[in-house]
Amino acid sequence: MSSHHIVRDDQEPALIIANGAACSIELMNQLLEWQPLVIVLDSAMERVVELGIKVDVLLGDFDRDFDPNSYKKKQYPLEIIHVPDQDKTDLEKAFDYLIARGHKAVNVIWATGRRIDHTLHNLTILAHYRDRLKIVVLDDHSKAFIIPHNYQKWYPKNTILSLLPIGTVENISTTNLFYPLKRENLQLGYRTGSSNHVAEDGIVTIIHETGDLLLVESMD
Amino acid sequence: MSSHHIVRDDQEPALIIANGAACSIELMNQLLEWQPLVIVLDSAMERVVELGIKVDVLLGDFDRDFDPNSYKKKQYPLEIIHVPDQDKTDLEKAFDYLIARGHKAVNVIWATGRRIDHTLHNLTILAHYRDRLKIVVLDDHSKAFIIPHNYQKWYPKNTILSLLPIGTVENISTTNLFYPLKRENLQLGYRTGSSNHVAEDGIVTIIHETGDLLLVESMD
Repeated sequence: MSSHHIVRDDQEPALIIANGAACSIELMNQLLEWQPLVIVLDSAMERVVELGIKVDVLLGDFDRDFDPNSYKKKQYPLEIIHVPDQDKTDLEKAFDYLIARGHKAVNVIWATGRRIDHTLHNLTILAHYRDRLKIVVLDDHSKAFIIPHNYQKWYPKNTILSLLPIGTVENISTTNLFYPLKRENLQLGYRTGSSNHVAEDGIVTIIHETGDLLLVESMD
Repeated sequence: MSSHHIVRDDQEPALIIANGAACSIELMNQLLEWQPLVIVLDSAMERVVELGIKVDVLLGDFDRDFDPNSYKKKQYPLEIIHVPDQDKTDLEKAFDYLIARGHKAVNVIWATGRRIDHTLHNLTILAHYRDRLKIVVLDDHSKAFIIPHNYQKWYPKNTILSLLPIGTVENISTTNLFYPLKRENLQLGYRTGSSNHVAEDGIVTIIHETGDLLLVESMD
């Protein structure tokens, strides 16, 4: 669906399709609408191609019984990036690829919903990239991203917002949340700000002093 | 399916059915086989009853358009526990309920796979209960639990094991893993031991000094 007759300035967020549970076609189409650079991770390619999506970059360690070159013709032009490094996941390697090419932002889909370890790793590794790449992980239920120390955004009343500390986050204060926080600490595994919601239509403010705070906007 | 003609000694793990994505019927039946105490969280009851499962305890804040009493007759005897406390999730309240009644162990299903915030919270809150309740979260792809400081178990070669620190875990050493760790630290969001695997049929040892280490056994 993405067209190569358009010259991209790479300011639009790229799109990474990882190897977890597929999202709805609606969400997929919404993200493809602006013709992002589309990167597919490893054997997810099989499922992506079935959906008729034009892929720009196929990236992976290709260590299973999977031949990336079989897609070269049908998906021409297709960049194939073989990244055998076992110290990083394919998702991290895709982030590294984007950073090396000067990209500033990326949406990630299919990164959740199958193996627990992948979901947990994919969501939390965002912390490591916070200063280099604006990453948003989306699925049919939620949208997750690391927020800056001083975060402000307009939300409709009752929007479900979860504040999930990746480790420990100190000195959090909020405005316009139903369960407000006032100079409080959150620690993953002990105390999180899960399933809060917006008190009134308007600006929500979330400030924190130290640590990595993942914000999850949820549909229910 | 669980029968009330059997006198339980509550030494068998209880079973909590949470409100995330349903698991396979095979996994469900396997866990029901030993007639555990079955606790269902809030409106998951609708989906559970459709499967013909006998429920022992229905627990929740019941704050949506959901009438727990409508199940009283068909599921007799059914204990209904109304827990309106907004500081904890229904899953935490179910853990508290089991601890208060002297249970030592519980399996949890349907706790993953829908909303990201629920999945992340449900998996990590295990840390908080580590000394009071042996909790295992299962779905069709994985099995997750907090391991003791000195963990040993026999695994077949190539079993996928992920070591996920809930926060920071210090001084981890392993034997019989393909990517061994030697007095290393892991920190969620920065460095995890995701997607390791067992080197040879035999005992795997994982020791760590401080912190909460979630082990995920995955099928792929």
